[in-house]
Amino acid sequence: MTNTHMWPPLSAPTVRDLAGLLDALRASAAQRDRDGGHAAGEKQWIADAGLLALAVPHEFGGSGARWPEIYETIRRIARVDSALAHLLGFTCLQVVSVNVWGNPEQRARYLGGTVEGRWWWGNAVNPLDTRLVASATGDGGYRLDGQKGFCSGTRGSHMMTVSGHDPSTGKAVFAVVPTTREGITVHEDWNPIGQRQTDSGSVSFAQVKVEPHEVLERADTPYASLRTLISQQVLTNLFVGIAQGALEEARAYVTQHGKPWISSGVDKATDDPYLIQRFGEMRLQAVSAEALAARAAYALEDAWQQGPALDAQTRAHVALATSEAKIVAHRAALDVSEKLFDACGARATHAPLALDRFWRNARVHTLHDPLDYRVRDVGRYALSGTLPEVSLYT
Amino acid sequence: MTNTHMWPPLSAPTVRDLAGLLDALRASAAQRDRDGGHAAGEKQWIADAGLLALAVPHEFGGSGARWPEIYETIRRIARVDSALAHLLGFTCLQVVSVNVWGNPEQRARYLGGTVEGRWWWGNAVNPLDTRLVASATGDGGYRLDGQKGFCSGTRGSHMMTVSGHDPSTGKAVFAVVPTTREGITVHEDWNPIGQRQTDSGSVSFAQVKVEPHEVLERADTPYASLRTLISQQVLTNLFVGIAQGALEEARAYVTQHGKPWISSGVDKATDDPYLIQRFGEMRLQAVSAEALAARAAYALEDAWQQGPALDAQTRAHVALATSEAKIVAHRAALDVSEKLFDACGARATHAPLALDRFWRNARVHTLHDPLDYRVRDVGRYALSGTLPEVSLYT
Amino acid sequence: MTNTHMWPPLSAPTVRDLAGLLDALRASAAQRDRDGGHAAGEKQWIADAGLLALAVPHEFGGSGARWPEIYETIRRIARVDSALAHLLGFTCLQVVSVNVWGNPEQRARYLGGTVEGRWWWGNAVNPLDTRLVASATGDGGYRLDGQKGFCSGTRGSHMMTVSGHDPSTGKAVFAVVPTTREGITVHEDWNPIGQRQTDSGSVSFAQVKVEPHEVLERADTPYASLRTLISQQVLTNLFVGIAQGALEEARAYVTQHGKPWISSGVDKATDDPYLIQRFGEMRLQAVSAEALAARAAYALEDAWQQGPALDAQTRAHVALATSEAKIVAHRAALDVSEKLFDACGARATHAPLALDRFWRNARVHTLHDPLDYRVRDVGRYALSGTLPEVSLYT
Amino acid sequence: MTNTHMWPPLSAPTVRDLAGLLDALRASAAQRDRDGGHAAGEKQWIADAGLLALAVPHEFGGSGARWPEIYETIRRIARVDSALAHLLGFTCLQVVSVNVWGNPEQRARYLGGTVEGRWWWGNAVNPLDTRLVASATGDGGYRLDGQKGFCSGTRGSHMMTVSGHDPSTGKAVFAVVPTTREGITVHEDWNPIGQRQTDSGSVSFAQVKVEPHEVLERADTPYASLRTLISQQVLTNLFVGIAQGALEEARAYVTQHGKPWISSGVDKATDDPYLIQRFGEMRLQAVSAEALAARAAYALEDAWQQGPALDAQTRAHVALATSEAKIVAHRAALDVSEKLFDACGARATHAPLALDRFWRNARVHTLHDPLDYRVRDVGRYALSGTLPEVSLYT
Repeated sequence: MTNTHMWPPLSAPTVRDLAGLLDALRASAAQRDRDGGHAAGEKQWIADAGLLALAVPHEFGGSGARWPEIYETIRRIARVDSALAHLLGFTCLQVVSVNVWGNPEQRARYLGGTVEGRWWWGNAVNPLDTRLVASATGDGGYRLDGQKGFCSGTRGSHMMTVSGHDPSTGKAVFAVVPTTREGITVHEDWNPIGQRQTDSGSVSFAQVKVEPHEVLERADTPYASLRTLISQQVLTNLFVGIAQGALEEARAYVTQHGKPWISSGVDKATDDPYLIQRFGEMRLQAVSAEALAARAAYALEDAWQQGPALDAQTRAHVALATSEAKIVAHRAALDVSEKLFDACGARATHAPLALDRFWRNARVHTLHDPLDYRVRDVGRYALSGTLPEVSLYT
Repeated sequence: MTNTHMWPPLSAPTVRDLAGLLDALRASAAQRDRDGGHAAGEKQWIADAGLLALAVPHEFGGSGARWPEIYETIRRIARVDSALAHLLGFTCLQVVSVNVWGNPEQRARYLGGTVEGRWWWGNAVNPLDTRLVASATGDGGYRLDGQKGFCSGTRGSHMMTVSGHDPSTGKAVFAVVPTTREGITVHEDWNPIGQRQTDSGSVSFAQVKVEPHEVLERADTPYASLRTLISQQVLTNLFVGIAQGALEEARAYVTQHGKPWISSGVDKATDDPYLIQRFGEMRLQAVSAEALAARAAYALEDAWQQGPALDAQTRAHVALATSEAKIVAHRAALDVSEKLFDACGARATHAPLALDRFWRNARVHTLHDPLDYRVRDVGRYALSGTLPEVSLYT
Repeated sequence: MTNTHMWPPLSAPTVRDLAGLLDALRASAAQRDRDGGHAAGEKQWIADAGLLALAVPHEFGGSGARWPEIYETIRRIARVDSALAHLLGFTCLQVVSVNVWGNPEQRARYLGGTVEGRWWWGNAVNPLDTRLVASATGDGGYRLDGQKGFCSGTRGSHMMTVSGHDPSTGKAVFAVVPTTREGITVHEDWNPIGQRQTDSGSVSFAQVKVEPHEVLERADTPYASLRTLISQQVLTNLFVGIAQGALEEARAYVTQHGKPWISSGVDKATDDPYLIQRFGEMRLQAVSAEALAARAAYALEDAWQQGPALDAQTRAHVALATSEAKIVAHRAALDVSEKLFDACGARATHAPLALDRFWRNARVHTLHDPLDYRVRDVGRYALSGTLPEVSLYT
Repeated sequence: MTNTHMWPPLSAPTVRDLAGLLDALRASAAQRDRDGGHAAGEKQWIADAGLLALAVPHEFGGSGARWPEIYETIRRIARVDSALAHLLGFTCLQVVSVNVWGNPEQRARYLGGTVEGRWWWGNAVNPLDTRLVASATGDGGYRLDGQKGFCSGTRGSHMMTVSGHDPSTGKAVFAVVPTTREGITVHEDWNPIGQRQTDSGSVSFAQVKVEPHEVLERADTPYASLRTLISQQVLTNLFVGIAQGALEEARAYVTQHGKPWISSGVDKATDDPYLIQRFGEMRLQAVSAEALAARAAYALEDAWQQGPALDAQTRAHVALATSEAKIVAHRAALDVSEKLFDACGARATHAPLALDRFWRNARVHTLHDPLDYRVRDVGRYALSGTLPEVSLYT
């Protein structure tokens, strides 16, 4: 459906033929949406396809894929399963966390380990949730006590990043710990209306030991803060993938089951002039979102290649392009997944088909942070030339 | 939320204080959406409130309510439960079927019976489904064999209308039969993504006897064909009710749980300028839909009052107003129920809240017939002055 | 094009057959849009049709029309000429000013005079413009010195209302003066992109005498402040009329000049499926706006009938309905007048046809006060139940 | 306002600093919109800037610019004057005509001549207008008699392409002739509501001699038919430029003249939350259009580089991307140029400012061929995988 050939070619070996994996994920997506919970087997397939090393640099044995490639891969998975695509995206994100905040030893250990061990990573870094206390243990390490919510990918992960509040300094502490460490309990309490298999439940920490060598030094340089934009572009490309996936499902359904309306005067549903227009409008939304997502990914890649020398203004332009793409993709995901039903008709609402999962997935994920404040950032730039500041979401 | 006082006042005693009933329905709506199936207890509450007699004329002991009143009642129930509102609307519709197609004896028997017996009615008249055969038995009656799908309200009903195909004449036969008649099996196979308690499963008929006095004479006069428009306005008002209900839930949720966004600069969510605009836009959609629904209901009432003398052109203008209202209400229901989440934020996606039921209910019900062909009817009138013809949907 | 028969019937003799007047206005509208300036002859036709007495009560010899009737008349004129419709609406508005702020003698003199003298009224009451000074002359009268901008209808009027700033009290003074009074100069400086014949230039006052009996006592009761809502509904109905007029011009043009597109596969433009949909969408916008305008007009009429006893809350509900109608009508006027061209095609852009005047008229007039703050009022009510306060615009 | 640095860099010397030229064009744009007619002086400035050689290959002394560069240049001019940008785009288009249809001698003569003589080119190739007869003169040449409409750029041009109907073969004949050739009369009859200086009037031909060496051999290869897509992308980038220009004018106006609304609670217009959102939405439309235009331009460049070996399917994918960009840009141009006024307020409607020229320019130019049939092409691909066929417009 997409015209990826129109973009500068992606040559890395990581964007291989994923057709088999994608077919398998699509085949069980409706059932897994109903079940929710943890997709252990499917996650193993993704790991076996070598995708967990996508964002790991060549020097550690990883794929060293460029950001446009990584996001293209995430989009392709999101077309059939946006929950598992989210998990892959967030493993890439933790890889980046180690890459930008870790020292050479940590990078070698954790990035190399990701490749060798096919590690899934969890995320317990939600900075708006300050309930987790990190107490310095005097040896450079910490003890963690408390809770974190919305810990995407933690259930079933091998490693996790975590942030805690150190009351003695008033600052946040960041670290990597194995998910199986004593004192860590991952709760099975994630039960949303969509994105049901993102393993985003809460995690409890009871006297959890953090070794000194596990503590990350969070940097606030423009380069290190690309991490936030990388995260936002993961979401953006999930939205694009949902829009594309909904369009593909609509096309497949109408081709297979579509009947012309009684007063349409055409013999085949695919000749119905209004149905054709609906597909046209759905595609226009999907390609607009994809084009802006690609534009943002290339901008990110340019900035990423500059490394620690990256200046704040260039980083801010990437933030702007990221917000622009995310807003357009947000709307495309919701609109296309709603209009899927206008294209397919009443029988497509049969619950076992779960064709509403695209809308529910889009709806859950597009609420990560409010659209309005992202539009505000774009508007401030358009009206006053003010570039977005670094924040938790931009 | 609505300004019903702005319309000509509704005086009939039927639009009584339904607050208790509505509160009770709302309290269990999320759970019943999850469960699906049959809402026997809640349907009894509606019957006990006397609402099944809404459309029955005074002469048979009914409420004799005018159409604007009937639809206002349906809307109010739809705000909290659009599935049960659909059942009430379709009972009113079968009452109309008897009223316009029945002879004096049938009207007395069935309309009087509805009042005295608090009958719920089912609908097995879906004319696009021709699998049910009606064989003349020689005494003026028929024998029914075969199946019907989408028989809204049939499960748990006392009486039903049914249409079958008579192969000897090539015409459809219409009749009233008790749902408990021997040979009728109501299947529990209704499992959609929304409108889950409309009891719209399939019904099998095996050598079902239809007595001569149960056969209705379907008339095709402009007056009798108001029945189709009455049905379409039931749907229209369900959509309006869904939009209003979603808006009310959003208001209640934000008032109770809303927190200002971190960069909003306001102390309370209800002071957030963008949230206020969202509520403004949601309300604008709801009031547009309500105004057009009221306009259509008054037009219908005027036509209905003319009785059998109604001419085709006046009827066609009611059809036009009905389509206009239905299109605008269709869009309002979908948009408001989607935007509910932008207003409420991420935590509102917790599955047990089932706040997505408004969108799922709207999505299922708005696919009854394609929007595009209804827009076409409006467009033909606007461009060429051609009024809508009588059809199964207009 | 409109289904006025669906609303409660309007019986007053004032809504007479205006077809001849409307045809004449339409015939010269394009030329007069180009010329701008003052439409003396056309204004005389309107006066001769007796329309200036529309809002004058029966007791003074006027039509005593109800608000829904008055606005229907304004809409009908606005369909062919929204500038002259504005002038009529603003004459009605000044009649109301005298009616609610005048004492019995003033009402008799000015309202009776309007009927007998077929007076057009001008408006120099723009309260945001404080450059006009009113100095008390000690006899209960005032002397006016300074300027007013945006004095709609003043050029060519017989009488005008005026407000000035009294520096000794810090308050505004309101009065009626003949436009020909010595010291008043009406400037011919109105040159906008649309609404070019609303005679809305600036007016200079040099030592203008205001007699004591010409001074109005501005009341701030809920009843008297209906005047603001009456003004806002004039604008609303101009917007509705522009939308309806643009739709009518599009219909006429396509019927007369439309050719099917080369790849459409149809023989006549009026059979083009996409053109039909465009007309459908245009009509849907027009009828939504008209329905909300009618709803607001009935609400206003109800409140107006209550007279000075009207309470603030009822008045505020009228304000809310007025804003809802105005927003929807604002959007309809712009959208339909833009889409007129998609319907008519490239040749319709020939400048002498001036078919862009609908958009330009809509564009100028919809900027009277910002849409966003009106949406905010609606949103505050929807979110918090807060009714609009009395202001210069609500 | 745009983030061109995010795209692969454009290195050709032609995208030089045009700031002086753009400022000069902008300064007189409002006046020239009012005057219409021919912008001889301004066209000379463009010629003097060397821009007429943009699309001429290096081998003939031209800039040899790549398509993304050419369109970027057209966009930049369109931001301040979309009529003159159209003229430049159409000169590039005629250069392409000679490039793909000409023999080596013709390419050398006309492309070299364009560089040396700074030739503006006119276009009398409108194929839907068949009134011009080409009679073979027996020597390989033709005689032209008749008329052509919509001959963009012909007035004031040095050379023109022309197509005539040869009745002896039933086919079209294409040729290059000097605009000053005996028998050619360029009429000053172009008077639209927008794009008023595109010199698109009609041209009469009376016994006009076409020499054998002036006749072009029109090829129908995929490569040669890129010409149509090049033309459509000219339009697309005019739309993008109009959207960007309207946004820039709105920004400049609000920054200079904007006042906060009385009930906004902010001190500066640029802090108004709703105004900021309006600018955000305007920019989102502009960047979506720009991103799709860039995507289409890169696709075109790839195909163009393949030369005569280009296959039909690759060409069709460029056609699809072109239509997608054109639709989104069409809507962006209209919406942003309308919303400019919501941003700027009532005083911006003063006619001498001519801020409505953006909307009028967009409105005229977006009617070149109907949007609906372009959406249909996109829809057919999305629904059935059918790629657009070569036509006069795709």
